[in-house]
Amino acid sequence: MGSNINTDLQTAAVIIIGNEILSGRTRDSNTALIADKLGGAGIRLREVRIINDDEDDIVHAVNALRERVDYVFTTGGIGPTHDDITAAAVAKAFNLDLYQDPTAHAWLESYYGEKELTQERLKMAVVPEGARLIENQISAAPGFNIGNVYVMAGIPRIMSAMLDKVLEKLDKGPAIKSATITCQLAESMIAKGLAKVQAAHPDAEIGSYPHYKGGVPGLSLVIRTTQDDVLEATRQDLIAAVRDTGCEPEIVNITKAAPDEGEG
Amino acid sequence: MGSNINTDLQTAAVIIIGNEILSGRTRDSNTALIADKLGGAGIRLREVRIINDDEDDIVHAVNALRERVDYVFTTGGIGPTHDDITAAAVAKAFNLDLYQDPTAHAWLESYYGEKELTQERLKMAVVPEGARLIENQISAAPGFNIGNVYVMAGIPRIMSAMLDKVLEKLDKGPAIKSATITCQLAESMIAKGLAKVQAAHPDAEIGSYPHYKGGVPGLSLVIRTTQDDVLEATRQDLIAAVRDTGCEPEIVNITKAAPDEGEG
Repeated sequence: MGSNINTDLQTAAVIIIGNEILSGRTRDSNTALIADKLGGAGIRLREVRIINDDEDDIVHAVNALRERVDYVFTTGGIGPTHDDITAAAVAKAFNLDLYQDPTAHAWLESYYGEKELTQERLKMAVVPEGARLIENQISAAPGFNIGNVYVMAGIPRIMSAMLDKVLEKLDKGPAIKSATITCQLAESMIAKGLAKVQAAHPDAEIGSYPHYKGGVPGLSLVIRTTQDDVLEATRQDLIAAVRDTGCEPEIVNITKAAPDEGEG
Repeated sequence: MGSNINTDLQTAAVIIIGNEILSGRTRDSNTALIADKLGGAGIRLREVRIINDDEDDIVHAVNALRERVDYVFTTGGIGPTHDDITAAAVAKAFNLDLYQDPTAHAWLESYYGEKELTQERLKMAVVPEGARLIENQISAAPGFNIGNVYVMAGIPRIMSAMLDKVLEKLDKGPAIKSATITCQLAESMIAKGLAKVQAAHPDAEIGSYPHYKGGVPGLSLVIRTTQDDVLEATRQDLIAAVRDTGCEPEIVNITKAAPDEGEG
């Protein structure tokens, strides 16, 4: 492409840990949640990896990505059961020992009560040495941060609350804004016009996403940029490019489009 | 974990190419579709990477994954617009030149008609030298296979039809079967019992996935294996482990559970 929203933005990667996504049993909803919050915080999501609850795979992904991006967020595998191995794997990736964090212990004791604080539950207080806890106001068991890696729960509601806490403390950039133009065109009808508009606006990222609704081909053109004036200028040029094909754009909005089912 | 469904199974990775997923605009539905079909074909999905329409990122992911797994499937970025760069990036990953495939040209001509076969549409006939085409019976523009990499469309309906074609020709293993047991337990109540059942059945993979429904914590226990007898024996032991906690399992089925929104 050559185009880029803003090369000064901080970058992030997400590691989604859990056999249930890779088996097709559970559909991932954390990616969309995280992508949305990062965009609002002016952090560019560069990659998502979905991997199994496998120690080698977790170590490999954590070590590969923490070198490539500014922030790595993991979700999943921090509960009390045998398949929850994320804390141990992240400790191994950083070559650190695990220890039971006294603050995490206190949080769990206050949530479960002293008598109900079993060995299995105490496992959720075990983090790599030197890790900073990420509070969990819903079910007590904390996430943690070590280096540029942020380890969060897999349940979307808990993950989302943890990410809000984390984002409060991170360096943020200008929010990434987007505008969407929809038209009933096959992609190939407007490919040349799109390329021209993209070349004229290198600070905007223009995506073209075809879909079929009731068998009729349609197209969503999405502009993303951190600059309001670039967004508006690109939007006007795109509307003109659509009209040049003889098609009137159907929906023109500046606000973020709701996620849909199609993929370009 | 140490447990594994079946170490003899072929392995696969998926690369989902498209800014629209990473921006949060579009929710990925290809992962669940592919995971399901691969499980049925006895191929173990080891990793999914979601990356941007960026040449370096595509080259990096293709080259990293084609070494690690038996089959790599990519989706997205093979249309006619400026952001469709998958064919060029895959050619670069294999250090191959691009060329216009005459069969692909004929398919596009037959679909669009000679007069409507614009330069933009002909771009969809351009593949790496030596690639084998993957037919697209819906909208003509083909995918392709080079080495162990299978390049498919991003639109789920088209991707799915292409994958069916590809799977007809691949070495398949025994189908991965699963059973799900649901109970109203917090994970920590059954963690010890689960670990015992897992240790007793190393050929089954047992996952524990907590969720909240209307504020009530619940748990899905999922068994996956290629062996019918292992599935049934593990299922009986898991039911007993749930009953040991004083809880009666609510739903017990052998068939594959429908994907839900929770994540473990």
